[in-house]
Amino acid sequence: MAGGTRELQVELGERSYPIYIGTDLIAQAGELFLKHGLPVKSPILLVTDSSVVDLYADKVEASLGEAGYAVTTAVVPSGEASKCLEVLDELVGTALQAGLDRKSTVIALGGGVVGDLAGFVAASYMRGVRFVQMPTTILAHDSSVGGKVAVNHRLAKNIIGAFHQPEFVLYDLDTLASLPVREVRAGLSEVIKHGLIWNEQFVAWCDDNADKLLALDSDSLGYALYEGCKVKSIVVSRDERENDLRAILNLGHTIGHALEAVAGYGELLHGEAIAIGMVGSARLAARFGYSAEIAEETERIFAKFGLPVRIPDSCDTDGIMSAMLHDKKFSEGKMVFVVPTAIGSVEIRNDVPSSWVREIVDGLREGNERL
Amino acid sequence: MAGGTRELQVELGERSYPIYIGTDLIAQAGELFLKHGLPVKSPILLVTDSSVVDLYADKVEASLGEAGYAVTTAVVPSGEASKCLEVLDELVGTALQAGLDRKSTVIALGGGVVGDLAGFVAASYMRGVRFVQMPTTILAHDSSVGGKVAVNHRLAKNIIGAFHQPEFVLYDLDTLASLPVREVRAGLSEVIKHGLIWNEQFVAWCDDNADKLLALDSDSLGYALYEGCKVKSIVVSRDERENDLRAILNLGHTIGHALEAVAGYGELLHGEAIAIGMVGSARLAARFGYSAEIAEETERIFAKFGLPVRIPDSCDTDGIMSAMLHDKKFSEGKMVFVVPTAIGSVEIRNDVPSSWVREIVDGLREGNERL
Ligand SMILES: NC(=O)c1ccc[n+]([C@@H]2O[C@H](COP(=O)([O-])OP(=O)(O)OC[C@H]3O[C@@H](n4cnc5c(N)ncnc54)[C@H](O)[C@@H]3O)[C@@H](O)[C@H]2O)c1
Ligand SMILES: NC(=O)c1ccc[n+]([C@@H]2O[C@H](COP(=O)([O-])OP(=O)(O)OC[C@H]3O[C@@H](n4cnc5c(N)ncnc54)[C@H](O)[C@@H]3O)[C@@H](O)[C@H]2O)c1
Ligand SMILES: [Zn+2]
Ligand SMILES: [Zn+2]
Repeated sequence: MAGGTRELQVELGERSYPIYIGTDLIAQAGELFLKHGLPVKSPILLVTDSSVVDLYADKVEASLGEAGYAVTTAVVPSGEASKCLEVLDELVGTALQAGLDRKSTVIALGGGVVGDLAGFVAASYMRGVRFVQMPTTILAHDSSVGGKVAVNHRLAKNIIGAFHQPEFVLYDLDTLASLPVREVRAGLSEVIKHGLIWNEQFVAWCDDNADKLLALDSDSLGYALYEGCKVKSIVVSRDERENDLRAILNLGHTIGHALEAVAGYGELLHGEAIAIGMVGSARLAARFGYSAEIAEETERIFAKFGLPVRIPDSCDTDGIMSAMLHDKKFSEGKMVFVVPTAIGSVEIRNDVPSSWVREIVDGLREGNERL
Repeated sequence: MAGGTRELQVELGERSYPIYIGTDLIAQAGELFLKHGLPVKSPILLVTDSSVVDLYADKVEASLGEAGYAVTTAVVPSGEASKCLEVLDELVGTALQAGLDRKSTVIALGGGVVGDLAGFVAASYMRGVRFVQMPTTILAHDSSVGGKVAVNHRLAKNIIGAFHQPEFVLYDLDTLASLPVREVRAGLSEVIKHGLIWNEQFVAWCDDNADKLLALDSDSLGYALYEGCKVKSIVVSRDERENDLRAILNLGHTIGHALEAVAGYGELLHGEAIAIGMVGSARLAARFGYSAEIAEETERIFAKFGLPVRIPDSCDTDGIMSAMLHDKKFSEGKMVFVVPTAIGSVEIRNDVPSSWVREIVDGLREGNERL
C-alpha cells in the first residue's frame, strides 16, 4: 500500500475488519482482494450510482480484472430513492445473471446510499455473501463503519435491513475531489459529530484545520476521516447491535431527522440537518445546567464550516415536534436526547421535557434574518 | 403445558430455542409468550395465510390478548407466490402502522411459505426483531427448524433471505387435522427423509406406523415430528450456516428441485418431488456399489405413504438435466449428490457422472404405466 495510507482495525471479534484510508487506493483494489483471500473464481458485483460510475468504476474494474476477478457493474440512479426494495430486486436479478455464488463479493462504490443498498444486497443474497465498502463521500465514513445496512420503506427510512460487516473498507481520498461543496460540508458535519461525542482534542483540531478540510487537503482529510472512523468503530465495537452505547452516535439526530422529514427529504442534506440538531442538543445541555459555552462553541464551529445552524423558516415548530414524537414514539411529556456535557462527551437523557424541546426549536429560528 | 407435550431443544449456543410439539398448544400461546419473556408492551404481528386465518388465527389472538398482548393479524394469499419482496413490503407497512418496535415479535402461523416469509420480515424489520414459529403443516417441521428464512426472486427460489432463529416453535398437532391429504403425504416425505439420512430405526418405525401417521393419530404424529425435528436440529446445531454437514439435508433435492421447476411449480408438491428424488439418489447408491436393497426399500416406503416414486411423463429428461445443471452450476461431467450408503446414513459425492444421473432419470420413468 502507498506510504501515507492509514489503517484502522474495527474490533468485532471474528467479524473484525480493517479500514484503509489514503490516496490512489482504488487502483489497488485487486491486490487487496487477493490479500483478503476473496476467491478469484467467484464473480463480483460492483454496485455504484449514476454520478459515480463514470468517475471511478473503470479504475476499480481494471484493478480487479488484472487480479483475475470477473466483475459485473450495476448502476443505480443517484439519490436516496434508490434505497428501496425494487432496486434491491433488480440488483439480485443482476447478481443471479452474473452467476454470483455463496463465495462471491458485493462491492459498494459510492456514498451512503450505495453503501446501505449494496450492503443489504450482500446481507440477503443467498442469505449473506461477502461485502466490501469503497466510500466516495465524506459522509460515508459514518455509513461504511458499523455494519448497519438497509433500504427504505414508503413509510419509514432504513426500516428493512441487517447488520452485515464488510471484509474491509477502502477509502480512496482521491475520489472525494469530485464532491459538490455542499456534500463536503455535510459530510464534515458527521466527522465533527464524532469529535463532539468522544474527543475534545479532535474537535479543536478540526476547528484549527477547517480551511484545509474544506479544501480537501489529502493529509488533513485522511487524518480527520481516520479519527472520525475511529470514534465510530470504538463505539460500535462495544455495542454492535445498538443496545445502549451506540445510541450516542445519534447526537443531533432527533431534531435532525425531524427537520429532514419536515423540510422534505433532499431540501436539507442529512449532515446539514444534524448540524442544526447538534446546536439544539447543545442548547438543551445549557437548559440542564451544563456550561452555555458548549452551545456557543458548537454553533461557532458548524458556522465556520459553512453549515446551517438555524432552522429554515419553511419548517414550522408544530411539524417538527410532531415528526419527533411520531418518529420515536416518545411517551408523553418526556423525550430521549443525546445531550453534550462538555465538548467531547455526551450523556443520554430520557427525562427531557418536550416543552424544553419546543422552546429550543422555536429559539433555533431566531436570528434567521441576520444569517 | 398439557401432558403429552414433547419438548426438543435446538442447540445453537446463545441462539438455542425449544420446539414444543403437542395438542391444544396454540390456546396456550399467551402463557408461552410470557414465559419466554416477550415484552407485553411491544405490539405483535401475526402473519398467516388465507387458508389458515379462519381456522386458527382467532385462537392465537385470543390467547395472546388474554395475556395482555396487542396483536395485529396480516393475511397473505395462500401459496408460494406470497414469498416475494412485494408481500414483504406490505407486511413491513402493516408492522409500521401497528407500531411494532425493536422489542416486538413477528409470528408465523402457517406452513413453510408463511414461515419463510414472516421469518424474513422478522429478520429484516428494524434489522431484526423476535420471531415465533407456529407451523400448521407437516412439511413445516422442516422449515421451522434451522433458521433459514427467505423470499423468492423471479429468477430463483429462496435467494433473498437470512439466518434468523426463532424464540421458540409451537407445533400444535390439532392444526394438522385440516390439511388436505396430499399435503399430509408430502409433509411426511420430509419426515421420512430425516430418517433416511440419520436414523434407521426411525425409518422402520415410520414404515410400521404408516397407517396411523396418514390418519393423523396425534401421538404417532407427535413422535414422528419430534424425531424429524430432532434430526434436523442435530444437523443444524453442528453446521448452522450450511458450510458442510447441513448439505446432507438435501437428500433427494437435486432431482426434486429440477422436477419442481420442469413440472411447473405447484404441479408436483415439494414433498412429492423429493420422494421421487430420493428414489433416484438411492438408485445412484446402487450404481456406486452400495446394496440395491436401499433403492427397493426407499421406493417401497414412499409408495406405502401414497407418494409418487416415478417421474411424471410431462417432465422430459433433457429439461430435468438442464434444470439440474443450471441450478447447481455443476462443473461439466461431474455432479454433487447426497447418496445413501444404507437406510439411515448418507454421504456427499462430488464425483457423480452426469451420464449416470441421466440414466437414472430415464429409468425413473419406466413402469409409469404400471403405477
Ligand atoms: N449505515 C449507516 O450507518 C449510515 C450512517 C449514516 C448515513 N447513512 C445513510 O447514508 C446515506 C447518505 O449518504 P451520502 O451523503 O453519502 O449520500 P449519497 O450516497 O446519496 O451521496 C451524496 C451525493 O453525492 C454523489 N456522489 C457520491 N460520491 C461522489 C463523488 N465522489 N463525486 C461526486 N459525487 C458523488 C451521489 O451520487 C449523491 O448524489 C443516507 O441514505 C443515510 O441513511 C447510513
Ligand atoms: N426454511 C427452510 O428451511 C425450509 C425448508 C423446507 C421448505 N421450506 C419452504 O416451505 C414452503 C413449503 O411449505 P409448505 O408445504 O408448508 O407450504 P405452504 O405454506 O404453502 O402450505 C401448503 C398449503 O397448505 C395450506 N395450509 C397450511 N396449513 C394448513 C392447515 N393447517 N390446514 C389446511 N390448510 C393448510 C396452505 O395455505 C397452503 O395452501 C416452500 O416455500 C419451501 O421453500 C423452507
Ligand atoms: Zn447521521
Ligand atoms: Zn425440502
